[in-house]
Amino acid sequence: MSVPQTVNLQEKFGLFTDQWSPKVVGELNGQQVKIARIAGEFEWHAHEQEDELFMVVRGKLRLKFRNGEAVVNEGELIVVPRGVEHLPIAETDETWIMMFEPASTLNTGNVTSERTVAELARL
Amino acid sequence: MSVPQTVNLQEKFGLFTDQWSPKVVGELNGQQVKIARIAGEFEWHAHEQEDELFMVVRGKLRLKFRNGEAVVNEGELIVVPRGVEHLPIAETDETWIMMFEPASTLNTGNVTSERTVAELARL
Repeated sequence: MSVPQTVNLQEKFGLFTDQWSPKVVGELNGQQVKIARIAGEFEWHAHEQEDELFMVVRGKLRLKFRNGEAVVNEGELIVVPRGVEHLPIAETDETWIMMFEPASTLNTGNVTSERTVAELARL
Repeated sequence: MSVPQTVNLQEKFGLFTDQWSPKVVGELNGQQVKIARIAGEFEWHAHEQEDELFMVVRGKLRLKFRNGEAVVNEGELIVVPRGVEHLPIAETDETWIMMFEPASTLNTGNVTSERTVAELARL
């Protein structure tokens, strides 16, 4: 078996420029580690069967919920439980996020739109 | 349902000082997010059923494997597949790590020693 390789997130973020298009940078226990560049507002959605972790690598993520909101700054993380509707927003600058979620998770959850990305690139 | 809360890792690390004693800061999909302060050498072990992700929040983690080694610096991560023996080392300063792994994962894996921590605190 080959030696496990270190993943440098800055380097991985440097490999693409498209926004709202998660890339897979790691897999474990049926879960995936994904990274994405985001800017502006996404769309309301929920994941019926999957809890989702967001961690901010650069910038600031605002998550709107139906009953409130949360702000996630660089070095912070948040877990959105399954079934909870959320709207991700990067208001100011482009924001870089890391996600940890089941491999089955679709970026738009229970909503299918032109922003749905079903086949994720692996970096 | 209450609004999901942001987790600030620096703040969580400030809540304890003991080393090699993972604390749970998040849970999702049967997995846990754990943080630990480490210094010096741990012990060789493997997790037979669990892949394990290490991310370095501060400092430097060296992971020895039977057939090589990897260095993980701040902002980098690594996935150690199940069954792979590894020896975590923080050689220089105290290092702060975050782990993603199944809730069932024991810090010393297949080895039980005085360093085994079975009941993890939640922060």
